[in-house]
Amino acid sequence: MARPTPLSGFPEWLPAGRIVEQHVLDVLRRTFELHGFAGIETRAVEPLDQLLRKGETSKEVYVLRRLQEDPQAGDADRAGQLGLHFDLTVPFARYVLENAGHLAFPFRRYQIQKVWRGERPQDGRFREFVQADIDVVGAGALPYHYEVELPLVMADALGALRDLGVPPVRILVNNRKVAEGFYRGLGLDDVEAVLRGIDKLDKIGPDGVAELLVGDAGATPEQAAACLELAAVRGEDASVVDRVRALAERHGASTELLEEGLGELGALVSAAAERAPGVLVADLKIARGLDYYTGSVYETVLVGHEDLGSICSGGRYDTLASDGSQTYPGVGLSIGVSRLVSRLLSAGLVRATRSVPTAVLVAVTSEERRTASDAVAAALRARGIPTEVAPSAAKFGKQIKHADRRGIPFVWFVGDTDDDGAPAQDEVKDIRSGEQTPVDASTWTPPAEDLLPRVVAAG
Amino acid sequence: MARPTPLSGFPEWLPAGRIVEQHVLDVLRRTFELHGFAGIETRAVEPLDQLLRKGETSKEVYVLRRLQEDPQAGDADRAGQLGLHFDLTVPFARYVLENAGHLAFPFRRYQIQKVWRGERPQDGRFREFVQADIDVVGAGALPYHYEVELPLVMADALGALRDLGVPPVRILVNNRKVAEGFYRGLGLDDVEAVLRGIDKLDKIGPDGVAELLVGDAGATPEQAAACLELAAVRGEDASVVDRVRALAERHGASTELLEEGLGELGALVSAAAERAPGVLVADLKIARGLDYYTGSVYETVLVGHEDLGSICSGGRYDTLASDGSQTYPGVGLSIGVSRLVSRLLSAGLVRATRSVPTAVLVAVTSEERRTASDAVAAALRARGIPTEVAPSAAKFGKQIKHADRRGIPFVWFVGDTDDDGAPAQDEVKDIRSGEQTPVDASTWTPPAEDLLPRVVAAG
Repeated sequence: MARPTPLSGFPEWLPAGRIVEQHVLDVLRRTFELHGFAGIETRAVEPLDQLLRKGETSKEVYVLRRLQEDPQAGDADRAGQLGLHFDLTVPFARYVLENAGHLAFPFRRYQIQKVWRGERPQDGRFREFVQADIDVVGAGALPYHYEVELPLVMADALGALRDLGVPPVRILVNNRKVAEGFYRGLGLDDVEAVLRGIDKLDKIGPDGVAELLVGDAGATPEQAAACLELAAVRGEDASVVDRVRALAERHGASTELLEEGLGELGALVSAAAERAPGVLVADLKIARGLDYYTGSVYETVLVGHEDLGSICSGGRYDTLASDGSQTYPGVGLSIGVSRLVSRLLSAGLVRATRSVPTAVLVAVTSEERRTASDAVAAALRARGIPTEVAPSAAKFGKQIKHADRRGIPFVWFVGDTDDDGAPAQDEVKDIRSGEQTPVDASTWTPPAEDLLPRVVAAG
Repeated sequence: MARPTPLSGFPEWLPAGRIVEQHVLDVLRRTFELHGFAGIETRAVEPLDQLLRKGETSKEVYVLRRLQEDPQAGDADRAGQLGLHFDLTVPFARYVLENAGHLAFPFRRYQIQKVWRGERPQDGRFREFVQADIDVVGAGALPYHYEVELPLVMADALGALRDLGVPPVRILVNNRKVAEGFYRGLGLDDVEAVLRGIDKLDKIGPDGVAELLVGDAGATPEQAAACLELAAVRGEDASVVDRVRALAERHGASTELLEEGLGELGALVSAAAERAPGVLVADLKIARGLDYYTGSVYETVLVGHEDLGSICSGGRYDTLASDGSQTYPGVGLSIGVSRLVSRLLSAGLVRATRSVPTAVLVAVTSEERRTASDAVAAALRARGIPTEVAPSAAKFGKQIKHADRRGIPFVWFVGDTDDDGAPAQDEVKDIRSGEQTPVDASTWTPPAEDLLPRVVAAG
């Protein structure tokens, strides 16, 4: 077998990179649990007809077949076919319906799993990546205050990552009711077409969007200009509400829906200014392409890395799922963990202090005395110190080099009365300083910062 | 959408079950890291031609195609096709080759991921399940002592699960050199055919195996009987070695290879008797179907649940991978986590003390005063106490019932001077005992056993 090459779009990390990813995931999980979210996992596959309910993603689905299966048979019966999930929302909706009788609502869950999208690799997009989602879903109703709470949970989670060296974030929020109320107040009824146009603002600029709104959404140049004025509103406090209200009055676009949306957006911005100052920004150009959002919508940029796009997005949906008799509204956000970690590593923003969990390498004096080294290792592990035993009874210099190459900070020499180079008593060497001290395996502990690999800001 | 039904072979857990699975995974990860194994993850897919190198598993592979792709195009070029990995060994071998220049050997890694097999669901087998693997792989050579170490790491990991209520295990070991040396000494050269026959002993019994050995492996009835005699040898100490040696002498089947294997098996059993008494058993009928094992082989049964089959298997392979210039021998074991957890849950062996991480529900006096409850929750979380705020300002009785239904042990009432039913000072109620005490959010801590859900023996 020749040396294989990486598959484009399927990121994998070396052990040191995986330590960074694992720390990020641990911090997220810890924060979600502190906020009372229960962890679940769903299977990787869903029936194809469920995955295709949102038409726009159909091109991204990976379809499965068993190797021995007739490739034609599957196509004839699409309902029986399985595809890999492309997000964690579709499987969560199915899980809620399937298990509704066993869940207490409002149900708070987090879910950290891989998802797959059959993207063209030349787009530079991942085809396999990790998402970390939180959602609250109600049975029948879900109060607005969850739309305030959930982005603040994410602010907490992403804020906790700053200790690892992750840059600060800005969570950009908007409210569908504001946008829809304003557009309808202007006289534009094809709200989805307007949203699709505004969603392209960063890509094609205001002139391009104006053209789209006139061409696709049936807007007059004046209406298009008003939509662009709304999209330009941005701010960190409730004064945003007044600016939008004034704008709507100027354009005769005030509606009840707009007022309802402004009330919600104002409450969100006010709460955020108090509980997570500087993190949350009302940004009226945030549209989110997906048509199932019905209230707040969220996107998140990593400050200084805005080119990365949103690393945490979501919103409120009035119908996450419905089984005919009951409707389940929800609100949720999803962190693109692979996108974030990939940037942390490629831009050299963070690093692991070592690439192995091991704090101590126990040297081996001779293969006959390996059991003495094994016993020391067992005693250290019993006290929570990650330890391994040297691969061979090579010269001590070579064993120290083995530890050095793996980033293991301490080498332990087992005391020996024989004349084979080992000290008379157990000694441990900090191979960074060269300092070597007499020790006892039942009491010695490494400095806390050396116990496990840590993730720290690089540079 | 009608209520969906579970997909056969794709297990999913309710939140309480996921807590059990997560605890099991946390204990395994912790143990593997204590032993100096670095965690890695590999992508879910491998090129189909790599997955099919072991012919016998071809029927189990799930092949992927993008939905918009011509289903015929893929078949024409199998090399470009991707399949889901069916174990973690094939991807690990590929990872080692791909990254050999960045890894320090012997490389110790653990890997906890889902794998997929396109099994017929009527077999009652999982089509998606979690495996937890450890392997040590060397560059060019790998000393025998790792064949002693790795099952003892698993004994440690599975032993650590006993605190959660998991039954004890027996790790059954054999050595391919013993089996092959004995068979060749008898004059049987089709070693693989003999192993395949012996592997069926539990299923078809000794008479059936004897028939197979005569029919498929070219054995005389006397040779078949000798193979069955060897398979019947079992013991927890080095006396096993003497019994096999005596058996071989009686049948004139002594060979150098047999002696080499007996030396290894004896060393393993002796070390295990000292370091994990009662856990490891030499069992000469353990064959393992896969032809790439070349030394020690391992299987593991859960005591009292032998019908479940092996929950942790593996062995030594002289060629995990090879890139032409370098060969990578290894030894590893893999825990079938889903199989284990599924039994723990279905047999009611363990349970989670609650199904949510939340320790405290902060009651809400009125929607206007929700921010006061949010502030208490933030103060508790800042001190590591998982907390959520009540969904609505319902009557306190209803809020307590909400906590009770979710298994949240404590309800917090925020002090209030208004006459709306709230106490004058903050109070917390243990809803199991009904005891309610005045508290301060900056100092109160729940009892340690209530801080997080725990996994305990059921019954």
